[in-house]
Amino acid sequence: MTFERVAIIGLGLLGGSVGLAVREHLPGVTTTGYDADPATRERAAERGLVGTVCETGAEAVADADLVIFCVPVGAIGAAAREVADAIPAGAVISDVGSSKAAVSQALSEALPSNVVIPAHPVAGTERSGPDAGFSSLFHHRWCILTPPDGADAEAVAKLSAFWEALGAKVETMDAAHHDLVLAVTSHIPHLIAYTIVGTASDLEDVTRSEVIKYSAGGFRDFTRIAASDPTMWRDVFLTNREAVLEMLGRFTEDLTALQRAIRREDGQALFDLFTRTRAIRRSIIEQGQDDARPDFGRSDH
Amino acid sequence: MTFERVAIIGLGLLGGSVGLAVREHLPGVTTTGYDADPATRERAAERGLVGTVCETGAEAVADADLVIFCVPVGAIGAAAREVADAIPAGAVISDVGSSKAAVSQALSEALPSNVVIPAHPVAGTERSGPDAGFSSLFHHRWCILTPPDGADAEAVAKLSAFWEALGAKVETMDAAHHDLVLAVTSHIPHLIAYTIVGTASDLEDVTRSEVIKYSAGGFRDFTRIAASDPTMWRDVFLTNREAVLEMLGRFTEDLTALQRAIRREDGQALFDLFTRTRAIRRSIIEQGQDDARPDFGRSDH
Repeated sequence: MTFERVAIIGLGLLGGSVGLAVREHLPGVTTTGYDADPATRERAAERGLVGTVCETGAEAVADADLVIFCVPVGAIGAAAREVADAIPAGAVISDVGSSKAAVSQALSEALPSNVVIPAHPVAGTERSGPDAGFSSLFHHRWCILTPPDGADAEAVAKLSAFWEALGAKVETMDAAHHDLVLAVTSHIPHLIAYTIVGTASDLEDVTRSEVIKYSAGGFRDFTRIAASDPTMWRDVFLTNREAVLEMLGRFTEDLTALQRAIRREDGQALFDLFTRTRAIRRSIIEQGQDDARPDFGRSDH
Repeated sequence: MTFERVAIIGLGLLGGSVGLAVREHLPGVTTTGYDADPATRERAAERGLVGTVCETGAEAVADADLVIFCVPVGAIGAAAREVADAIPAGAVISDVGSSKAAVSQALSEALPSNVVIPAHPVAGTERSGPDAGFSSLFHHRWCILTPPDGADAEAVAKLSAFWEALGAKVETMDAAHHDLVLAVTSHIPHLIAYTIVGTASDLEDVTRSEVIKYSAGGFRDFTRIAASDPTMWRDVFLTNREAVLEMLGRFTEDLTALQRAIRREDGQALFDLFTRTRAIRRSIIEQGQDDARPDFGRSDH
């Protein structure tokens, strides 16, 4: 029903988690893997992230029926070109990147004769590298497939079944729409978090030591997000530039309105917004996309 | 060494936690409490948040040597005036509010003959009300005292000892400096979180259901903060208006610079900022102000 030989290019948090999840949930499927960094390959072999860690990408993909690129989105085109000659004609090509229109184009250009079905499992942590992955990363998380128009239906079904086997729920949408949705649910939150952490660390009248000491007032939640992989996030903003700028414009408008409400001491406007935002939190918890424990359960220590 | 009869006015998350923490850590100290809401008083009595839940504020403070106001900062002046005639002359007056210059002024005006030492335990969760409190809320958290110039040193020492007994670490600073520090470590993060959650729920081209489904990409962390008590936060922004607007100005400048970097595809500027922000996260974890488990430990479910 699904694939039999999966090649994973890039063995960091996402690639490693895919490998471990396959081993746990699809024990009949063989996995090969490659990473451009020799130290990562060594660590991947020690942890058993994939069945065989190969010394070249070409070797890893040579016998695959599914190739998943798990490298930063800005590097996907080059990674695909590097192994293009070695990929079997019938292999399905996918990825795990956070922006999809640019990735779809890069993969289709690099591998014009393969079926390309970009994918984005909406899951991750602030850790990166070959030690960061774990097999349950995709449990109860959504994986969004963005098959191009006219994509092979059987390949889409097989890739859906693959992600469902790893514990994910699968949704299909247009790449452009994906990029808009993720701009607001992921990219802008990361951009804002990086910004405020940067602002706080550059202040003259408040020391960095004070920022750290009193971070439990809310700031520390932003630092978690702002600890995410810099290369990955640089590439997300560069490859999803238009949707990010569009959503950033709307956020800035709303922030300006709130700034005006504070300046004018319009308590009612503040109260109304602060009440409205609670409902979204409740829905996220009801739909199993977050933990209901207050303060993320941190309060018990 | 510390106080013997503590009156708590306001029995929500903070007031309830103070009461429970006293019962656990200072069993010799008696507590009385009052809340303007009859349903909260009833629930407080059921949970035993304080030794005696009184029917009036005057009754609660009548015999106290420490009175702690745990109501939204905008309501502190009125709450203090309401019990002013009943407060013993020697009682020390304090609070737990998130802005300090305005609170200090309101308490000093309402209770001119008492020693007033404002305090802010930098701790909390997104829950509110009489069911939200728990005795370990202040463990390993900082409590900032902002005694006015010439404040009674013995009273400051007793209040420090009180908070240390509840598990907190105590720091003393000027009220104006407190308000600036907390603007960046707490108030602006809340303002930004409220804004992005509001922006996301008002979009036309991305549905609310999509925002909820794909919130695991970062957005959900912001919704936790944006679920905090609306009345409390309205009052924080109104009473710490100048520091909040000052810090918001700096944040907006930095966000504009990042927006320009994205527009100009300046990957190096993005990468440099995203690398720099990781260091702050490490320090926060090293200093015990957050949990090192990736993704707040959510990954295991």
